[in-house]
Amino acid sequence: MPQYTPPVRDTRFVLEHVVGLSRYANVPGFAGATPDTVDAVLEEGGRFVAEVLFPINQSGDQEGCTRHEDGSVTTPTGFKEAYKQFVESGWGTLSAPEAFGGQGMPHVVSTAFQEFMISANMAFAMYPGLAHGAIAALVAKGSPEQQEKYLPKMVSGEWGGTMNLTEPQCGTDLGLIRTRAEPQADGSYKITGTKIFISAGEHDLTDNIIHLVLAKTPGAPDSSKGISLFVVPKVMVNDDGSLGERNAVSCGSIEHKMGIHGNSTCVLNYDGATGWLVGEEMKGLAAMFIMMNAARLGVGLQGLAVAETAYQNAVQYAEDRRQGRALTGTAEPDEKADTLFVHPDVRRMLMNGKAWLEGLRALCLWGALQVDLEHSAEDDAERQEAADLIGLLTPVIKGVGTDKGYQIATDAQQVYGGHGYIQEWGMEQYVRDARIAMIYEGTNGVQAMDLVGRKLAMNGGRAIQLFFKIVAQECAAAKSGPAADFATRLEKALGELQAATMWFMGNISNPNNIGAGAVPYMHLLGVVSVGLMWLRMAVAAAALKDAGEGDAAFLDAKLVTARFFAERVLPEAGSYRRQIEGGAEALMALPPEMFRAA
Amino acid sequence: MPQYTPPVRDTRFVLEHVVGLSRYANVPGFAGATPDTVDAVLEEGGRFVAEVLFPINQSGDQEGCTRHEDGSVTTPTGFKEAYKQFVESGWGTLSAPEAFGGQGMPHVVSTAFQEFMISANMAFAMYPGLAHGAIAALVAKGSPEQQEKYLPKMVSGEWGGTMNLTEPQCGTDLGLIRTRAEPQADGSYKITGTKIFISAGEHDLTDNIIHLVLAKTPGAPDSSKGISLFVVPKVMVNDDGSLGERNAVSCGSIEHKMGIHGNSTCVLNYDGATGWLVGEEMKGLAAMFIMMNAARLGVGLQGLAVAETAYQNAVQYAEDRRQGRALTGTAEPDEKADTLFVHPDVRRMLMNGKAWLEGLRALCLWGALQVDLEHSAEDDAERQEAADLIGLLTPVIKGVGTDKGYQIATDAQQVYGGHGYIQEWGMEQYVRDARIAMIYEGTNGVQAMDLVGRKLAMNGGRAIQLFFKIVAQECAAAKSGPAADFATRLEKALGELQAATMWFMGNISNPNNIGAGAVPYMHLLGVVSVGLMWLRMAVAAAALKDAGEGDAAFLDAKLVTARFFAERVLPEAGSYRRQIEGGAEALMALPPEMFRAA
Repeated sequence: MPQYTPPVRDTRFVLEHVVGLSRYANVPGFAGATPDTVDAVLEEGGRFVAEVLFPINQSGDQEGCTRHEDGSVTTPTGFKEAYKQFVESGWGTLSAPEAFGGQGMPHVVSTAFQEFMISANMAFAMYPGLAHGAIAALVAKGSPEQQEKYLPKMVSGEWGGTMNLTEPQCGTDLGLIRTRAEPQADGSYKITGTKIFISAGEHDLTDNIIHLVLAKTPGAPDSSKGISLFVVPKVMVNDDGSLGERNAVSCGSIEHKMGIHGNSTCVLNYDGATGWLVGEEMKGLAAMFIMMNAARLGVGLQGLAVAETAYQNAVQYAEDRRQGRALTGTAEPDEKADTLFVHPDVRRMLMNGKAWLEGLRALCLWGALQVDLEHSAEDDAERQEAADLIGLLTPVIKGVGTDKGYQIATDAQQVYGGHGYIQEWGMEQYVRDARIAMIYEGTNGVQAMDLVGRKLAMNGGRAIQLFFKIVAQECAAAKSGPAADFATRLEKALGELQAATMWFMGNISNPNNIGAGAVPYMHLLGVVSVGLMWLRMAVAAAALKDAGEGDAAFLDAKLVTARFFAERVLPEAGSYRRQIEGGAEALMALPPEMFRAA
Repeated sequence: MPQYTPPVRDTRFVLEHVVGLSRYANVPGFAGATPDTVDAVLEEGGRFVAEVLFPINQSGDQEGCTRHEDGSVTTPTGFKEAYKQFVESGWGTLSAPEAFGGQGMPHVVSTAFQEFMISANMAFAMYPGLAHGAIAALVAKGSPEQQEKYLPKMVSGEWGGTMNLTEPQCGTDLGLIRTRAEPQADGSYKITGTKIFISAGEHDLTDNIIHLVLAKTPGAPDSSKGISLFVVPKVMVNDDGSLGERNAVSCGSIEHKMGIHGNSTCVLNYDGATGWLVGEEMKGLAAMFIMMNAARLGVGLQGLAVAETAYQNAVQYAEDRRQGRALTGTAEPDEKADTLFVHPDVRRMLMNGKAWLEGLRALCLWGALQVDLEHSAEDDAERQEAADLIGLLTPVIKGVGTDKGYQIATDAQQVYGGHGYIQEWGMEQYVRDARIAMIYEGTNGVQAMDLVGRKLAMNGGRAIQLFFKIVAQECAAAKSGPAADFATRLEKALGELQAATMWFMGNISNPNNIGAGAVPYMHLLGVVSVGLMWLRMAVAAAALKDAGEGDAAFLDAKLVTARFFAERVLPEAGSYRRQIEGGAEALMALPPEMFRAA
C-alpha cells in the first residue's frame, strides 16, 4: 500500500542551482558527471530502487532476519535476489575508485542515488552501505596487497563489509575496548573478543564478509590511543583470490530491535580469528574516523531519506482521505467531506516536512560536494576550505538530519490519525526505522560535542568563520534582489548563531557550559545551514522565474516553501541561543540521587 | 530488567502545595480525602501497580493479544490474574460514585493513582480506563434503569466498558458515521455497522463488556447533529442481573499496532445487535463529549505516565553506565570511565524530563481538581471558574502532555545509546506505547483546534482571561519573594501568550490563520501553564526551606528544576509566538500536487 517516487526533479534542481555541479568540470571525476549522465543515474537508479527494493521494504520489516543454529543468518524473502540484481546492475559502484573496479563518479552523484536507495529500503541499503565505510578505510589505509585482495570484490558488491567498534562495555568510549589482537609469527594477528551491534555482520547476500575490527595489541595503552584496526575476513581468501576455510568469527545472536528488521544486527564472536593490521599499530582511531565520517554522512542521509518516504505517503493520504470541512467554508460540496489538505494544521506538518526535506537534501548534496573537493580539487586553498566545511557540517548533517528525520516521520504518521499506528499502513515502520539513525555512528549528543568541542575551535575557529563569511556574503548579495526578505531573516538567524558562538568563547572556563549548549548549538547551526540552502534555492528560483525558464509551478513552490522556512523555522534560532546562554549550572547542580527523588 | 517506582513524594508535594487539597475539605467528597487516606492510596496503590502490573508490562508487549477463530480474544499471560486482583483490591473504584459502589473520593486522588497504574502498565490500565469513560456517560445520561443494570458491575470492574466512535471512513469527522440504529417495538434498537480501533473491545478479563456506541437513527441528518448514543452489552443482561445470551456484536479482527500490544484493539461488527438509547435521540454528540473529555484527560496522563517510567530507567542507566570522562576532568579516577551523569548533554535530557514530568504531574492534578470543583463546589462562581479552566486546559493536558511524553520517552531511550534500540532493555516499548497517545481521543492537531477554535472565544474569552489573571496575579505576588526571577521570566512568557492571543483576534477574518497557529498556540499555552505550576512549586519550596520544614535536598531539587525550566523551556514562548504570527498564507498557498513535485 505505501508508495515511493524518487524526487528526481528536486535533486536535479539542487545539483544545478545549489551545488552548481557544472562549475566543477575541471575537478577529476566531475568531467564524466555530465548532465546527461547524472540524469541517467537519477532516472534509472531511481527506477531500480523503486521497482526492486521498495516492494520488499515492508515485507522485510515484518519478516525480519533469522539466525539459524549454525550461526548463519537468512535475510528476509526477496533480499537475496534483489541484492543480486543490485550487484549486477552496478549501482553500488558509482563513486568507487576506478582502480578497484568503480565508476569513479563524484561522491555528490552517488549520494543522490543513495538517498533514493535508503528511501526505498533502509534496511537493505545498509548492507552495501556498511561495506562503503570498510572500503573507504581500506582505500585510505590498506596495504597494496590488502587493497588488491579485498577491494575489487567489495567494490563490486560480491563481498560485504562491516565496521566492528562496539563491545558490551564500550560504546562511545573506545578506550574501553577489550578485544585483543595477538601478533603471530607470519605477520598476522589472532583476534579475540566480542563485538555487538554489528550491522550486516552475518547474512546470506554474499559469499564473504570483510570485517574491519578495532582491537588492542599487547601492551597497548588503556585508552583510545591504544587501538589498532584489523581486517578480518569471514572466509579466508587464498592468494589466487579463491575462498579458503572459515575464519574463527561467528554470529552469536542477532538483536531484536525496534526497527530496521531487514538488517541483521549481530553479536560477533572472534575466537582467535585471523586478521591483519590495517595501517599502523595504535593508529586505529584515525583509520576508524575515515570509516566513521563517511558513515556519519550516510546516516544523516538516512534521516532525510526515510522521512522522505514517510512524507510522500502522508501527502498521498492527505489527498485521499476526506474528513471535516475547510475552516473557510466547504471546499467540495458534492463530497461528504473535504480532503485533509484543507486543514491548515495538516498542511503545517506537510510544509514543515517539505521545507526540511528539500533543505536537508541540498545540505547533504552540498556536503557531498565538499567531500569531493576535499579530495580532488586542484587548488590547495579550495581543498582546505572544503575540508573545513565538511568537517564542520558532518555533525550537523548527521545530528540535525536524523533528529528532523524522526520528527518528520512522526508527523507523517500523525497525518494518518489512527491508521498511522497500524502496521498495515506502513507508516509506523518509518518512525521505527528512522529512530536508530539518531543513535548509531555516534549519538546525536556525541555529534554535538564533536561540533562544539572539536570542530568549532579547530585551527582557531577557521571553519566556523568561513561558514559565517559565506552566509553573510550570500545574504548581502541577495538583499538587493527578490529574496531580500529571506536574506534579512537569515541574517538575523546568523546573528543569533554568532552570538551563541561568542557566548561559548566567553564561558569556556567551565567546559560544562560547552557540553550544556552543544545540542541546541548543533540545531542552531542546522537552522542557519539549511537556511543558507533555502536562500540559494529562493535566489535561483526567482532568477529562473524572472528569466521565464523552468517550470513556473515548481519554482513558485520553491519560493513558497522558502517563505515557510523563513516564517516558521528561522525564528527557532533565537530560542536555541537563549537555551545555550542558560549555561550548565542548572544542569549540573543536582546529585544523581535527586533525579529519582520523586 | 526495567524498573518503576511510583513518585509518591512528588505527588504528595503537588497535592499539598500546588493543588492545595486541604483547602477543599468543604467540598463534597474531599472530607474523606484526609492526608492519611491519600497517603494510603499513594503508598498502597503504588505498591500494587509496581508489584502486580509492572512485571507483566514488557512480557505483555512481547506476547500481545491473540484473537481466536470464534472471535474471542486472549490477553497476554498474567493479565487475567492481575485484573482479578485489581478488581478484588478495589483500586478501580476510588472516585466512582458511592451510589453505584464506588468510594466517592475526589477525582484528583484517583488521577494520582491512575498515573501510577499507567506508568506500571499502560496497555493493562486501558482496560479499566476505557470503562471509566463509559461509566461517566451512563452516570450523566443513562436512565435510572440503565444505571442500575450496568453501573454497579462496571464500577466494581466485574464488567468492562468501551467507547465505539470510529468507523473505517470516519475518524475525527463524526458526521460521517454510517452505523444504523433501527427502533424496535419494545423500545430497543437494532444496531448494525462496523466500528474500528475499539480499545478493549473484546478480551477475556470480564464476563461482560458494555459497549457505548454512536449510531444514526432513521432519518437523522447526515451530520454530527444526527448522532445518538446507545448502550449495547456484549452479553444480554436479564432483569435479575444474571447474564443471558450473546448479543449480535463480535470481534472481526484485532489490529497489529506499533505499541500497546497488551491491549486488544478491535474491529467490532454489529449485526443487528440489541441496544438502548442513552439520553435523547440525536444528542449523542453531547453524551460522547462526556466520555471524551474524561478520556482526553486520561490520555494526557498517559503521556506523562509512560514517559515517567522511561525517565526513571534512563536515570538508573545514567548512574550505572560508565563511558567517557567528565569535561571538567576525571571524576572517578579509580574507575575506567565516569558515569553518564557527568556529561552535560545527558543531564540536559534528564533535567528536561524531570522539569516537564513534575510540571505536567502538577498540571494534571490541578486539572483533576477543577473537574472535582466543576461538579462539586458549593459556590456557583467557583464551579464556573473550574469549568472554564478545565475546558481550556483539557486540550493542553492532552496535546502537550502527550507530545512531551513522546519526546521525553525518546530522550530516555537516547540516554541508552544503542541499547535503547534493543527490545530486551525495554526502552523502545515506552516510545512505541507513548506514540498512540498523540493520536487517539482526537489527534493533537484536533486538540489544538478545540483550544483555539472553540475554547478561546467561548463566552467572550472568559476562560483565557481568567487564566491570564491567575498567572499575572501569582507572578506579581511572587516578584517580591525568592522566586522573583522565575516570576519575571514567566511574566515575559505570559506576555508572548497574550500577544499571540491578540494576534488571533486581529487576524480572524481568515479562519485559516487560527488553524495555522493552533498547535504552536497549544504548546505556548502549555509552556505558560506548566510554568505556572513551576512558579507554585518554587514559591512553596522556597517557603518551606525558609521555614526549615521538609527535606532540604528535595526542596533544593525543586528550585534547581524550576530554574532549568525558566532558562531552557520558557524561552520557547517567543519562538511559538513568532510561528503563530507567520499566519496561514505560506501554508495554504500550494496546490496539493506541488507537495509531491519533487
